[in-house]
Amino acid sequence: MTGANQLWEVRDVPTPTAEPGQVLVKVYASGMCYTDVWATQGYGGDIYPQTPGHEVVGEVVEVGAGVHTRQVGDRVGTTWVQSACGRCAYCRENRPLTGQTAMNCAGARTTGFSAQGGHAEYIAISAEGTVLLPDGLAYEDAAPMMCAGYTTWSGLRDAAPQPHEKIAVVGIGGLGHVALQLSKASGFETIAITHSPDKHDLAVQLGADHVVANGKELNELGGADVLLVTTNAFGAAEEALTGLRVDGRVVLSGLDFTRPFSISSEGVPFHMMRQQVIGSTHGGQHYLSEVLDLAAKGKVKPITETFPLARATDAFDRLTSGKMRFRGVLTPQNS
Amino acid sequence: MTGANQLWEVRDVPTPTAEPGQVLVKVYASGMCYTDVWATQGYGGDIYPQTPGHEVVGEVVEVGAGVHTRQVGDRVGTTWVQSACGRCAYCRENRPLTGQTAMNCAGARTTGFSAQGGHAEYIAISAEGTVLLPDGLAYEDAAPMMCAGYTTWSGLRDAAPQPHEKIAVVGIGGLGHVALQLSKASGFETIAITHSPDKHDLAVQLGADHVVANGKELNELGGADVLLVTTNAFGAAEEALTGLRVDGRVVLSGLDFTRPFSISSEGVPFHMMRQQVIGSTHGGQHYLSEVLDLAAKGKVKPITETFPLARATDAFDRLTSGKMRFRGVLTPQNS
Amino acid sequence: MTGANQLWEVRDVPTPTAEPGQVLVKVYASGMCYTDVWATQGYGGDIYPQTPGHEVVGEVVEVGAGVHTRQVGDRVGTTWVQSACGRCAYCRENRPLTGQTAMNCAGARTTGFSAQGGHAEYIAISAEGTVLLPDGLAYEDAAPMMCAGYTTWSGLRDAAPQPHEKIAVVGIGGLGHVALQLSKASGFETIAITHSPDKHDLAVQLGADHVVANGKELNELGGADVLLVTTNAFGAAEEALTGLRVDGRVVLSGLDFTRPFSISSEGVPFHMMRQQVIGSTHGGQHYLSEVLDLAAKGKVKPITETFPLARATDAFDRLTSGKMRFRGVLTPQNS
Amino acid sequence: MTGANQLWEVRDVPTPTAEPGQVLVKVYASGMCYTDVWATQGYGGDIYPQTPGHEVVGEVVEVGAGVHTRQVGDRVGTTWVQSACGRCAYCRENRPLTGQTAMNCAGARTTGFSAQGGHAEYIAISAEGTVLLPDGLAYEDAAPMMCAGYTTWSGLRDAAPQPHEKIAVVGIGGLGHVALQLSKASGFETIAITHSPDKHDLAVQLGADHVVANGKELNELGGADVLLVTTNAFGAAEEALTGLRVDGRVVLSGLDFTRPFSISSEGVPFHMMRQQVIGSTHGGQHYLSEVLDLAAKGKVKPITETFPLARATDAFDRLTSGKMRFRGVLTPQNS
Repeated sequence: MTGANQLWEVRDVPTPTAEPGQVLVKVYASGMCYTDVWATQGYGGDIYPQTPGHEVVGEVVEVGAGVHTRQVGDRVGTTWVQSACGRCAYCRENRPLTGQTAMNCAGARTTGFSAQGGHAEYIAISAEGTVLLPDGLAYEDAAPMMCAGYTTWSGLRDAAPQPHEKIAVVGIGGLGHVALQLSKASGFETIAITHSPDKHDLAVQLGADHVVANGKELNELGGADVLLVTTNAFGAAEEALTGLRVDGRVVLSGLDFTRPFSISSEGVPFHMMRQQVIGSTHGGQHYLSEVLDLAAKGKVKPITETFPLARATDAFDRLTSGKMRFRGVLTPQNS
Repeated sequence: MTGANQLWEVRDVPTPTAEPGQVLVKVYASGMCYTDVWATQGYGGDIYPQTPGHEVVGEVVEVGAGVHTRQVGDRVGTTWVQSACGRCAYCRENRPLTGQTAMNCAGARTTGFSAQGGHAEYIAISAEGTVLLPDGLAYEDAAPMMCAGYTTWSGLRDAAPQPHEKIAVVGIGGLGHVALQLSKASGFETIAITHSPDKHDLAVQLGADHVVANGKELNELGGADVLLVTTNAFGAAEEALTGLRVDGRVVLSGLDFTRPFSISSEGVPFHMMRQQVIGSTHGGQHYLSEVLDLAAKGKVKPITETFPLARATDAFDRLTSGKMRFRGVLTPQNS
Repeated sequence: MTGANQLWEVRDVPTPTAEPGQVLVKVYASGMCYTDVWATQGYGGDIYPQTPGHEVVGEVVEVGAGVHTRQVGDRVGTTWVQSACGRCAYCRENRPLTGQTAMNCAGARTTGFSAQGGHAEYIAISAEGTVLLPDGLAYEDAAPMMCAGYTTWSGLRDAAPQPHEKIAVVGIGGLGHVALQLSKASGFETIAITHSPDKHDLAVQLGADHVVANGKELNELGGADVLLVTTNAFGAAEEALTGLRVDGRVVLSGLDFTRPFSISSEGVPFHMMRQQVIGSTHGGQHYLSEVLDLAAKGKVKPITETFPLARATDAFDRLTSGKMRFRGVLTPQNS
Repeated sequence: MTGANQLWEVRDVPTPTAEPGQVLVKVYASGMCYTDVWATQGYGGDIYPQTPGHEVVGEVVEVGAGVHTRQVGDRVGTTWVQSACGRCAYCRENRPLTGQTAMNCAGARTTGFSAQGGHAEYIAISAEGTVLLPDGLAYEDAAPMMCAGYTTWSGLRDAAPQPHEKIAVVGIGGLGHVALQLSKASGFETIAITHSPDKHDLAVQLGADHVVANGKELNELGGADVLLVTTNAFGAAEEALTGLRVDGRVVLSGLDFTRPFSISSEGVPFHMMRQQVIGSTHGGQHYLSEVLDLAAKGKVKPITETFPLARATDAFDRLTSGKMRFRGVLTPQNS
């Protein structure tokens, strides 16, 4: 992007080098998150021309001075936030969830926003912002874990689900199809909530024990203890509360830019049900390690469409028009 | 009350007896909760004529068959829910927080709603729904603990405040003036949020380390980790979120019948701040024991206006018109 | 038993009646716990002649005065503690976990100890100490849930296992074979630790993903996050700590009367590993509801040997001599 | 130290420089921890000659390449672990508590052990292993927070104390006198357990609401919910369990090299009391930020004896002989 609201274009740019504290990574896969669209529309990023992409995996080809934790040849990935300023009020608190603190640090180095992103052949990354990929995990399956997987696993973990509880996933899209697999892989009775009858069979294949159309049907089924909201259509999410049980938790991992999330004052009151609404984003880096491990074990596998870098604008069109089937992944080393 | 929306009147009624499983209690103090007004307006209760009052304390004067836990002479109190049906879906789950389960049990025996309440000289109560009062706690100070104290302490406990965190109390009224004392007594840095400049000095006396007018001022102060919402004016509560810190929790202990509680989609997003909205009501009975212990130790002392039973209608007028200074308590044994 | 250290004998005794607050239950199944042996050896109980048995299920045939929660025809069960005194220091605290408080109440009514137990055709039980059995769960499968199931599920729940963690079960006997099934049914990667090579295949059938002989082998496998100790041979349990991971928890659900449990000062220190030793016993009654639900769904099924009441002494011999295959159950309505 | 078991000596050494990723710090205060003695006795460290000292604070005088988080003039401190290898099994899990992971990383850079420590005029530290000191906190008061404060606050936080609980501190020495202040500052009812009658008045001044000699006396007082063991005499710690309440937690922050910690099989069983033994060490860096904030606010103030570097061997003698009054601090910029 050459500026806010400018379309994507594929350009030749100089290959970056690894500054002290950084590694240079040859990008093998770079996932496309809907946030890329927002960034393109000017909601993030402030450097132009800008390369978007914050689900980046590849191989370390150069190690900057002072880096002791990474080596040439390492298979690594990075997420939205690579490092934080270390000096602001948030950073001074040193909250346990590194990612989270960094997300609220105005001076954070953010992949594809304040720093060049991964939809490129090479990317320079703060070494501390990389994770080592587990052996045997294909780059194309790893990339979507860096945001879609990390986000939904953080949501599930932040809900603190207890043995014997039931988890419902609201929306079966880019995030939802991952959340469903993660819930099932963690041993919970899992319910998919989707308005699309044609997604029924897929939801079952992905691990749903039940598929319902809305909260009312969920309630008839006995309700759920956790609602993972993976859609940004808050109307559907609010309706789903009808099926939330006593002591139940709703996890909001995103935003509906068009409206607030409302807790109704009708029906059985929220406070009498002792329910909770939990805001969640990328949590501690151990969550990322866990979801990568689950991916390496085949317990979660994203459904992807891959594109060589040359077809990035086509991919962007599919993403913006809602035609992308779950997760688009650019593969810069293919042509 | 002889029916929904009927005014209160003081009447002679037969003294009840202790049925099997019950105790008969001579009422020494019966607190007036704003819920009494709702009940009068037809939002609860379904037996008429009905005696309201669910903050009841007194002395056991008769013990029913099968009761092994209470004795004549015991100083006891009861809360809203005395016992549950034991058979419905909620009861079958046996959730740990007895009070909470019972609150969602349609067949619960509720003081002043499905059963006769405490604004009377005598009341028959399910023995299991009574707690023993600690020695040395005056009846007039104990009564408001049965709902105002129990509710706010449950809210504070449900917020799971950690050492070093800061608690802000939104609204300094019947519940708020108790919440403020409880937060301070628990060792937290405490902030009162009140629109009324005339409550400033009182808030400080009750334990506020700081007094601010709204969330904006709270934010300038560095924010709070917990917001205890003790007002049912959700507009003020929502504004207070401006001052909620990362990982912060808002506790809703009541309802605004006029509107939902909205989580804004503007400013720094709720999910990026990892904040939570927690619904809370009377929790496990150990919370009640704890708050009674704090009251017995003088760490929390409700500000009350007392009235003999003969002046109950005057008291009700003060309550409905908002003139009651914090908590009205009927003292049926005085005249 | 006619006294401490007296052998069991089958006798005709008068059928009890349901006192106020009680129900009379026709016993269909009564599980045999090793605690029965201790009780016989004088470690519990103080009424003689005494009927042991605290894993009791059956049908309500009479309801005492003041009981509103149970009806004739109800299928119910009871556990060790039926009710507490309500007056001692423990009871006054009203801790959330009913069962636990009661366990520390010196005046508790305990099945087969301070009150007559379930190895009989009829038993009178405090109504509050009963739970309704889920439909479709056979009495013989329900009985062992009242102690073996309740204990192990409480242990698992008290360990607060997180998604992605691994649970190891130390000992595959009466409790262990249930703990293994519960861990697997909850979605955790599960490891059986047993010294008996002949139990390997059974452990796998019960849900073990891995079977190892000791902590050393567990460690080679990558370790476990939770150790559920279901044996009272603490030597083996201590050795198993070798395989406990950082932040790992050891749950002790019982006692080794011959020795203390020692946390070694050798090797990598316990405190540097941030490990925990957790004491656990019957937790809140919701744990009991949950494990009964799992049993009704077939997710846990005890391996039992059944005996008519007439063969109770044979059964006792098998139990004391360690020959009982997992769980003995008396079926008083059979002959 | 020129080798294991060699005495300390003050030597002139070259001033180090800030390598990439490091900062060079002019040391203003360096606390003496009993671990220094162990290190001298060969339990840690493997570089000789070695400068011990892992409670280091001072001013940044040089910033290495690639360091964006620190500036010349920053007042900083560091703890035992400066950075981890980033590649071992522990590091790959990215556990939320940075310090903890690093502690179990064999390749960690540890101050005064695998790297030169703080008993010197200058020290080079990994920038990521430094924290910014709050304004207004004197260096001499800050230094003991880097280990004594960090350790005890981590212990208190790991115990997850709830409002209304009581905390007992076992031992009133270098760690204990800090733990006492921290418990009181956090609003808990606080009990000091000390065998030394002459420490009674001091304990009260430091915030103890009660002072007892042992667990038996603690029990008579009603017991404690948390025992913070700050002594490495496990005999006393075990006896203190006599005064631990139901659901109580014992925190072990150290080690008794002479014996294991034993959980008795006598008296009321540990598992029936649902008690826990919690191993604790330096937790997440936010704990360090919190304890520094408490120190800056004057809520905790270590009692120290200061020594110029030239008197380091005298200081060491006082430490080893147990004569040091709570915490020795070297002040290399004084003479």
